[in-house]
Amino acid sequence: MFKSRLNQLIEKKNSMVCVGLDCDIERIPRFLWSEEDPLLIFNREIIEATKDFAIAYKPNIAFYESQGIAGWRLLEKTLELIPPDKLVIADAKRADIGTTALKYAETFFKTYNFSAVTVSPYMGRDSILPFLEFSDHCVFVLCLTSNPGSRDFQYLDIDSEPLYLHVARKVVEWNLEYSNCGLVVGATHPEDLGSIRETAVNLPFLIPGIGAQGGNLKMAIQYGTDKDGFSVLVNASRSILYASAEKDFAEAAGTVAEKLKNEINQFRFMKRGN
Amino acid sequence: MFKSRLNQLIEKKNSMVCVGLDCDIERIPRFLWSEEDPLLIFNREIIEATKDFAIAYKPNIAFYESQGIAGWRLLEKTLELIPPDKLVIADAKRADIGTTALKYAETFFKTYNFSAVTVSPYMGRDSILPFLEFSDHCVFVLCLTSNPGSRDFQYLDIDSEPLYLHVARKVVEWNLEYSNCGLVVGATHPEDLGSIRETAVNLPFLIPGIGAQGGNLKMAIQYGTDKDGFSVLVNASRSILYASAEKDFAEAAGTVAEKLKNEINQFRFMKRGN
Repeated sequence: MFKSRLNQLIEKKNSMVCVGLDCDIERIPRFLWSEEDPLLIFNREIIEATKDFAIAYKPNIAFYESQGIAGWRLLEKTLELIPPDKLVIADAKRADIGTTALKYAETFFKTYNFSAVTVSPYMGRDSILPFLEFSDHCVFVLCLTSNPGSRDFQYLDIDSEPLYLHVARKVVEWNLEYSNCGLVVGATHPEDLGSIRETAVNLPFLIPGIGAQGGNLKMAIQYGTDKDGFSVLVNASRSILYASAEKDFAEAAGTVAEKLKNEINQFRFMKRGN
Repeated sequence: MFKSRLNQLIEKKNSMVCVGLDCDIERIPRFLWSEEDPLLIFNREIIEATKDFAIAYKPNIAFYESQGIAGWRLLEKTLELIPPDKLVIADAKRADIGTTALKYAETFFKTYNFSAVTVSPYMGRDSILPFLEFSDHCVFVLCLTSNPGSRDFQYLDIDSEPLYLHVARKVVEWNLEYSNCGLVVGATHPEDLGSIRETAVNLPFLIPGIGAQGGNLKMAIQYGTDKDGFSVLVNASRSILYASAEKDFAEAAGTVAEKLKNEINQFRFMKRGN
């Protein structure tokens, strides 16, 4: 089960860090451009430099599929480089009608053996169940996202509660049946994260939005963790990947990942408001 | 521009038919299994048999990516088989934060030159703008989907209006700026389709849900078309693709596509309620 594995890893490695592998040819150090497979070398160096501090990696599928077949090949090779004790999350934000959702679930859980996938809730229950049927894998449903556009629909008021809380409640309902749901909750809305945790007491949260997006890490940890201080993965992508554009990029990435790990631990058992 | 091209094609070919290319190895005729590339042969025969009746093809990306690299290769070869006068829609239901959404947009509009893509609205404006920046291409935003799960969130009441109408209104707003938005509206909710058309007077609608999903074609056409009887694509996938599991599968697919084309035309200028 994903959730118990997550919490064991948090305990054992004393870390909640997830490194987002959003590799972009335009943003990697230029000296790598002369290499035969610059993005693969970049990913390899990043994984190598951060693996002592991260418990999970999250390839963002967009950055791979935008390159066509070469990108999927890069993804396959990157997956092989991730140590087997790590969680591997496909940031894919898929979902579709049942027959199609099953195909997407097969993509990420059969064709590629990801530990978890992110999905979008808009199409409702039957668009997500085919993912949930893969009981060893976790399905992180978008709840409150870290981007400015989250204001457009996620905060719309329904019976005095925002849409994102209705989504959280539905996912809790699905989780009663399947036990493998999680939520994506952006660190850019730290106060609202608390109300989502009150609604989804036990669900693992994937928290993006710190680092480049400027979310509040301290509040995200204090409000996002469960009552025992577990069940959270904090993702950072650009702030780690592009910490330096020079020869020391991997070392710099490791330093940022380690710092993030330590900051999280500093906040993890601090009393709220301190 | 997509919309003028769509309406010119509707006029010229007297058709609104879009064929969904959801090819599934488990569902194609078994005699094809002994071929070297059964799914490519299947797609080729389906395209050949339906091209006189369809003005658009819609590969459902899930059915390709679930096969990994072989699936993307199949997609590339399939795209080459679609006649150049057809619209080609990537049914992908993507969307993500801005930097990532740009990568998805590049996947479908640059790496692959689709005429249009489907996207999910949950993450709001900045998750969709990068697609809209490709002004020659159309972006169909999920509004009211054809599946049972559409009841979970899309009908939630906000200020006495369902969420899907709020989505439609936002998309109309974005369209004022970009002029290349469309909406996905399922034929399984024909009455509600009318209220969406009243809100989005000029937007092209992609209407799935007839055929295997049992939507009401007559009402979908009568309520979904714009005031001049245009701006609609009716998609059918399984009812065309799997019309026969025998040697005559392509002929049978052509027959169903032709019948759909004629039925649409029969309803297109019929007065509502007749």
